[in-house]
Amino acid sequence: MVYLTRKEHFNAAHRLYNPKWSDEQNEEVFGKCANKNYHGHNYNLYVTVKGEPDPDTGIIVNLKDLSHIIQSRITDQLDHKNLNIEVEFLKGIMPSTENLARAIFIELKKYLAGCELHSVKLFETENNFAEYFGD
Amino acid sequence: MVYLTRKEHFNAAHRLYNPKWSDEQNEEVFGKCANKNYHGHNYNLYVTVKGEPDPDTGIIVNLKDLSHIIQSRITDQLDHKNLNIEVEFLKGIMPSTENLARAIFIELKKYLAGCELHSVKLFETENNFAEYFGD
Amino acid sequence: MVYLTRKEHFNAAHRLYNPKWSDEQNEEVFGKCANKNYHGHNYNLYVTVKGEPDPDTGIIVNLKDLSHIIQSRITDQLDHKNLNIEVEFLKGIMPSTENLARAIFIELKKYLAGCELHSVKLFETENNFAEYFGD
Amino acid sequence: MVYLTRKEHFNAAHRLYNPKWSDEQNEEVFGKCANKNYHGHNYNLYVTVKGEPDPDTGIIVNLKDLSHIIQSRITDQLDHKNLNIEVEFLKGIMPSTENLARAIFIELKKYLAGCELHSVKLFETENNFAEYFGD
Amino acid sequence: MVYLTRKEHFNAAHRLYNPKWSDEQNEEVFGKCANKNYHGHNYNLYVTVKGEPDPDTGIIVNLKDLSHIIQSRITDQLDHKNLNIEVEFLKGIMPSTENLARAIFIELKKYLAGCELHSVKLFETENNFAEYFGD
Amino acid sequence: MVYLTRKEHFNAAHRLYNPKWSDEQNEEVFGKCANKNYHGHNYNLYVTVKGEPDPDTGIIVNLKDLSHIIQSRITDQLDHKNLNIEVEFLKGIMPSTENLARAIFIELKKYLAGCELHSVKLFETENNFAEYFGD
Repeated sequence: MVYLTRKEHFNAAHRLYNPKWSDEQNEEVFGKCANKNYHGHNYNLYVTVKGEPDPDTGIIVNLKDLSHIIQSRITDQLDHKNLNIEVEFLKGIMPSTENLARAIFIELKKYLAGCELHSVKLFETENNFAEYFGD
Repeated sequence: MVYLTRKEHFNAAHRLYNPKWSDEQNEEVFGKCANKNYHGHNYNLYVTVKGEPDPDTGIIVNLKDLSHIIQSRITDQLDHKNLNIEVEFLKGIMPSTENLARAIFIELKKYLAGCELHSVKLFETENNFAEYFGD
Repeated sequence: MVYLTRKEHFNAAHRLYNPKWSDEQNEEVFGKCANKNYHGHNYNLYVTVKGEPDPDTGIIVNLKDLSHIIQSRITDQLDHKNLNIEVEFLKGIMPSTENLARAIFIELKKYLAGCELHSVKLFETENNFAEYFGD
Repeated sequence: MVYLTRKEHFNAAHRLYNPKWSDEQNEEVFGKCANKNYHGHNYNLYVTVKGEPDPDTGIIVNLKDLSHIIQSRITDQLDHKNLNIEVEFLKGIMPSTENLARAIFIELKKYLAGCELHSVKLFETENNFAEYFGD
Repeated sequence: MVYLTRKEHFNAAHRLYNPKWSDEQNEEVFGKCANKNYHGHNYNLYVTVKGEPDPDTGIIVNLKDLSHIIQSRITDQLDHKNLNIEVEFLKGIMPSTENLARAIFIELKKYLAGCELHSVKLFETENNFAEYFGD
Repeated sequence: MVYLTRKEHFNAAHRLYNPKWSDEQNEEVFGKCANKNYHGHNYNLYVTVKGEPDPDTGIIVNLKDLSHIIQSRITDQLDHKNLNIEVEFLKGIMPSTENLARAIFIELKKYLAGCELHSVKLFETENNFAEYFGD
């Protein structure tokens, strides 16, 4: 079993905000991350798949294909978007780094074939990142 | 003359949008960067000052002081903000990387004493950055 | 279960030196790392916690709180210090990268509440790092 | 148990090419990676060993020794070489990142003593890497 | 005047080899860089243009357009190629980092309109790079 | 004229301390950087030379030779050393980043032949660096 990782990226706006709470409560819990006019990040996304390299090709999955799936299914949906408002697979999900990593894993898993999704690691900044392994 | 550089950073939302134009015109010129719900970036800011190191201290400027000025005057104003709406010294300025670098230079210059501001270099992403030298 | 990581850093002096050995023996085993006048590093510290994101907040732990605990309990004790001499929780511990990662894990674990400490990864340089998972 | 990682690097030429296939078939499967005149990469190699730090030295393995073994046995064989043609331990192996990581693990394991090889992680580019844990 | 930089990259094979010299002479001058089966690199290319930001758009040049020109005219010609053999604008040019930076500058300058090319900086590795300013 | 840069590195201990002042005065001016037991850094050093590429070799200077000179004359003198005590060419010089960059430039210039030293850029941390151009 070999693990293969592809890095992609997207730039997006978001805020941490629970619509069931008052503005004051959101401000108290999330501080400046709750700013009503949003802020944003350059997100770096690492997708890891695992499998046995094919004897004829030496690869688990064609990286061009893997990159194309991640881009068309995930990062094209997220890039230059507002994560609280505009993304179909994030409806009803608070866009914290933890939730984003998990939602991306669940969404991407639907579209991968011929290899197993091992983990999704998402960097919100150089200093903060979340990783989800599917359970 | 020695050149000394301090790196700071901030995370912000913005869009490229000229309010004198129609939405279609903005879309045509700026593409997805014009998205009305904003997107965002992790900005890295490099401030370079120049001067003669002080014979007693060996330094041009105390980096703690320089960092404090950049933070209080610039990055605290920009961090977790919407650059099109919320920043006093960006009023009326389209928040392109070029304009941001120039506006930060002009704003920061007012508050620096004891050393000369040489340049402001602003990374919008790893792949795009602008630098301004004051003329 | 989602894994969340926070990066912090500190700059410190140290030497590899076993006080039970002669200077010659230390020199033989540790080479230039045993230099009696010390050398130093910019250490990068990655702390990973794990847990279930809270349904109301979407987060495992508030990163501001996590960062505050790591700084007040760990990096403030280590930053601009001599790791052989000045740090309470390193008394009697040879400050190799391996031992530092383990000692930081054990010390930090005392102060974390509401989430589980998964690992401590410590970079001594870009080229050398140690990771400890608690057993 | 503590995990210790050493980073090394090498620059090499390669192509993805299955000699049992026609040029057209190779071109179809591997695209520009099959270019008959080769292309190349700056490879970054992360070797992780695990063990109990020695009570007298605080280390699992002397990093100077570990680095020397990796260099003499692995990266000196690969650096400034053509991975399809010139490397003894890659004979008959398609030099995909997955296969390289596995082949390096198997080769390096023969020469490590006093600590256990945990994994080999190989970056072909910043965006693509493979990791192998030995089974 | 503001300076705007765009980073692109390509992966290529090359060797340092003067065809007017014997193999022994090439080996003596260039060492392992002369290896007849080639080696390769992940090249990072930084293109800097300068100009006055447009009052209506806030930009010097549309980065999407700049990126498209660099890719179509330069990096698509170089990516996954052998720099000694396959590149039209490098015919007769020894592919040292210095010569590559200069040749890319001269080639790219033909295709840029609406902004001035300031410099081309080319990283062969993290540790080696060359920069050319056009004179 | 092409500019060629080589990166080297060293790890060292230092403190900011003016021996003509009292401990209190040092503490007041330099804060924790004055700690009497020292602290340390992983320094990254970028040396830039300029010249005309040789028509026969395509290079300004052999990078192996340049690297050897920087290492033997500069970084071997600094690596795993205490910059306040142990380095011949730093005697009497307060080891601030500014002073180190200038002292390295002056020292290195003595040993370079066949190319002109353009600048020395020294990173004390990712966030702080100084550059000196020789005047």
